Amino acid sequence: MIRKLLHDEILQQRLTNEIALGAERHPVSLLLHNIRSLYNVGSLFRTADAALAQKLHICGYTPAPPRKEIEKTALGAVDSVPWEYHASSMDAVVKLRQQNVKIFALELTDNSRSVYKLEKSDFPLCLVLGNEITGVDDDVLAMCDGALDIPMYGVKHSLNVSVAAGIALFQAVAAWRHCK
Amino acid sequence: MIRKLLHDEILQQRLTNEIALGAERHPVSLLLHNIRSLYNVGSLFRTADAALAQKLHICGYTPAPPRKEIEKTALGAVDSVPWEYHASSMDAVVKLRQQNVKIFALELTDNSRSVYKLEKSDFPLCLVLGNEITGVDDDVLAMCDGALDIPMYGVKHSLNVSVAAGIALFQAVAAWRHCK
Repeated sequence: MIRKLLHDEILQQRLTNEIALGAERHPVSLLLHNIRSLYNVGSLFRTADAALAQKLHICGYTPAPPRKEIEKTALGAVDSVPWEYHASSMDAVVKLRQQNVKIFALELTDNSRSVYKLEKSDFPLCLVLGNEITGVDDDVLAMCDGALDIPMYGVKHSLNVSVAAGIALFQAVAAWRHCK
Repeated sequence: MIRKLLHDEILQQRLTNEIALGAERHPVSLLLHNIRSLYNVGSLFRTADAALAQKLHICGYTPAPPRKEIEKTALGAVDSVPWEYHASSMDAVVKLRQQNVKIFALELTDNSRSVYKLEKSDFPLCLVLGNEITGVDDDVLAMCDGALDIPMYGVKHSLNVSVAAGIALFQAVAAWRHCK
C-alpha cells in the first residue's frame, strides 16, 4: 500500500530558506531574457528552487519580484532562490562569462546540441531562456557559447517556456550529479 | 555564429497531424486525475505532442476539449495527441492495466522511486498526475503499481503540475529510447 507523505514528513526533508540560500547549489543558472509572463517568472522561481539552481538572472523587460502574480506561482520560492536583475541580457552574459560560466541558449538553431548530451566540461553553465514568442534575440544568441535543445518528436515545435526550462534544468542537474 | 532555425526549416522536420496520429508513439501515457486548470490541460497537450506520448487519459472533473482556454495553451496540440475521457480515474486505471500498462502516480510517497531510475520492464507505462492542490487521491493511489518522484532539492516540495509532467514525461521517453 502506497501512502502519500504528510506535509510534516515532507517538510522534514526540505531545506529552510536560510540553509538553501547558503547551500552549495547546483552549478546551473537561468537567464530570463525578456520573458513576458509574470506567471512564467513565478513558475521559474519554483522550478529553480526545486532543482537547487545556482541563480536566476532576470534580464531586460522580464518582470522581477516583488509582484503578487509572481508570488502566486512561485509559492514562496522568491525567498529561497538567489536572483539578480540586469537591464541588459548582454551585460549579464559578459558578467557570467567572466566567472567562467558557459552560456547556452535553449533554442532550436542550426547548431544545437541535445540537453541529453551535456558533459562535465559544460559546467558551470547558464541556460538562456528567451521571450515566449520571439525566443532569444540574435544579438544575445551571438554571444552564447552554444545552443541546447530538447528533442521535439511531435507536430508542434516548441514547449511552454516554464515546461522547457524545467526539462532542461533538471536534465542539466542530473548530468552534473552523474559526472561530477 | 549560431542561427535560430526559420519557421519553415522547423516545419520541415515536424510530423503532420495525420502522420502523428498514426505514428508509432512512445509507450508513455498521461492520466489527468481531477486537474482543475484549463491552462494546465492545454500545456499538457502541448508537452505530450512534443514528447510523442501515447495518449492523454482525461479523467474525473479534468476539463476536456473543446474549450478555448485549453486551445490557448495547447497551441493546436489537441489535434495531434490521441486522448480519451473517462468519468472515473479508477475505471481508466483498470482499462490500462488490462492492456499491460504499468500505472505510476507522480507523487512523493513513502515508497516512491526516482523517475531517473526507470527500467525497460517498467514500460509501457502511464503517469498519473493529480489535482494541483490535493494530488492523486488515495483510492486511485491504491490501484497504482507504484509511485515515481522528481528529486526535490530545495525548500518547497512540489512543482507546477505541467512542469512536473514535462520533466517526468521527457525523462521516461529518454529512458525508453535508451533501453528499448
